[in-house]
Amino acid sequence: MVGSLGLDTVQTPFDKVENALGGSAVYISLASSYFGGSVDLVGVVGTDFPSKYIKLLEDHSVDLEGLQIVEGKTFRWAGKYHYDLNVRDTIYTELNVFEKFDPVVPEKFRKAKFICLGNIDPVLQLKVLDQMENPQFVVCDTMNYWIEGKREELIKLLPRANVLIINDSEARLLANEPNLIRAARKIREMGPEILVIKKGEHGALLISDEFIFSAPAYPLEMIYDPTGAGDSFAGGFTGFLHRAQDITPDNLKSAVIYGSSMASFCVEKFSTKGLEDLSYLQIQDRYREFMKLSRFNESE
Amino acid sequence: MVGSLGLDTVQTPFDKVENALGGSAVYISLASSYFGGSVDLVGVVGTDFPSKYIKLLEDHSVDLEGLQIVEGKTFRWAGKYHYDLNVRDTIYTELNVFEKFDPVVPEKFRKAKFICLGNIDPVLQLKVLDQMENPQFVVCDTMNYWIEGKREELIKLLPRANVLIINDSEARLLANEPNLIRAARKIREMGPEILVIKKGEHGALLISDEFIFSAPAYPLEMIYDPTGAGDSFAGGFTGFLHRAQDITPDNLKSAVIYGSSMASFCVEKFSTKGLEDLSYLQIQDRYREFMKLSRFNESE
Repeated sequence: MVGSLGLDTVQTPFDKVENALGGSAVYISLASSYFGGSVDLVGVVGTDFPSKYIKLLEDHSVDLEGLQIVEGKTFRWAGKYHYDLNVRDTIYTELNVFEKFDPVVPEKFRKAKFICLGNIDPVLQLKVLDQMENPQFVVCDTMNYWIEGKREELIKLLPRANVLIINDSEARLLANEPNLIRAARKIREMGPEILVIKKGEHGALLISDEFIFSAPAYPLEMIYDPTGAGDSFAGGFTGFLHRAQDITPDNLKSAVIYGSSMASFCVEKFSTKGLEDLSYLQIQDRYREFMKLSRFNESE
Repeated sequence: MVGSLGLDTVQTPFDKVENALGGSAVYISLASSYFGGSVDLVGVVGTDFPSKYIKLLEDHSVDLEGLQIVEGKTFRWAGKYHYDLNVRDTIYTELNVFEKFDPVVPEKFRKAKFICLGNIDPVLQLKVLDQMENPQFVVCDTMNYWIEGKREELIKLLPRANVLIINDSEARLLANEPNLIRAARKIREMGPEILVIKKGEHGALLISDEFIFSAPAYPLEMIYDPTGAGDSFAGGFTGFLHRAQDITPDNLKSAVIYGSSMASFCVEKFSTKGLEDLSYLQIQDRYREFMKLSRFNESE
């Protein structure tokens, strides 16, 4: 997996943290670390990146051979969430060492079959994918920033992705189509067989040729920090499929629920705290809670 | 059931209809007519109300003894939906005969146990409820217009409702709380044991003391006319519970799916067309499609 590692300054109506661990690669790694496979991370940090964060990732069995530590400052992002946590302002984004990041996939990572391209510049996602020997299942995350700013590069990447994960407003933006189901069809025509649409408090949709799956959201009375929810989803989704090894409709549906479970743990605490000390048992319990939420009886 | 009967002029990006049959009472009646119980309608129209619409309701076994036909013009509403069908402008609202509507529940309706108070002025909803002898299950629909304009009257009504049905933005408005789950708790403290939150293309939530149920939306590529979707939901929801006669968690969940099914049929065609010629078999098929949409496997 590839993505960003950063130091996030986040303010919500409830609290504020400065220079906390963040970045798409971090959330993906932590979320997928609970599914038992090896998590091979490709990314970059500056020399100011705290060693305790390196240790945290190592403690979660994340293989950091693909992590470049280069002279300079680590990527930084600051954001502020409003009373309505669905609205967020970016205060600043400092690319720092990320600006010249040229991802190199270590030799021993290149045979990996399951690839998760975290939310970064599609040019970098392509560079990573080009180094892989025989990728069999490619999950790609992106966001409005790239859809608007690097549309052409993203369009080039899409035919090489098996799954694209985006949120609902991004799906409408990418397809230029307000109806989500029609938007999904248009996007799947751009390349990915499977589209996953994250809808935050409204759950998620998985759309393939054969079926549509609608997953509920976990009903949280208190969301402390929405940062990283989408990345945690991608990590849980890919992690479970890597564990299952078999891309069946049933496993894809379960992967959406495991992804949603990881996202729900993520937003319950600040920064990466919600993903640091979980057990697989807790994750399975949450999976079962999703089932209770959405099960109903056969009709008469 | 009580609600409005009207003549709607509706423009969507796809078509325009003038003076088509509309109103909350009409959608509720038609939707609930498929569940086998008697549908007793209380409402008012002017002498200009086309007899073909009276016949349509009669053909669906709606008992019109509680329908007042008074000198003057029928309630009229005109709306325009934008390219994104989630956005709608009201062009005009003419209350006409509705302005002086004083609902009278016919003697033979007063013993009804299942009451559906369609989306009208809460003062009128209360007047109807006051005439019922022994209401056992009261479903109440409302909207932002009444939450903002008749808050006090609505608050007076809520303790007498078993179920309140509103959409997500209305729930946030009524509770003055952006988190939907916390908003639901606050609203339930105002009276109704059960809250149903309609989320349009994102499905619906039912929240009670014992459980939360999340229902998917039916994935439609083409929504012709969203008018009446919420009323159709209320009609299907109440109609199924009346058929079941037993308010269990399982039946409440099924009622949400039947309500969602009726709403999905409603929006597939203009005006009330989607609710005019259904069979119970078709409705059960759609119910099963909702099940396929949301089922997933037990975890390992």
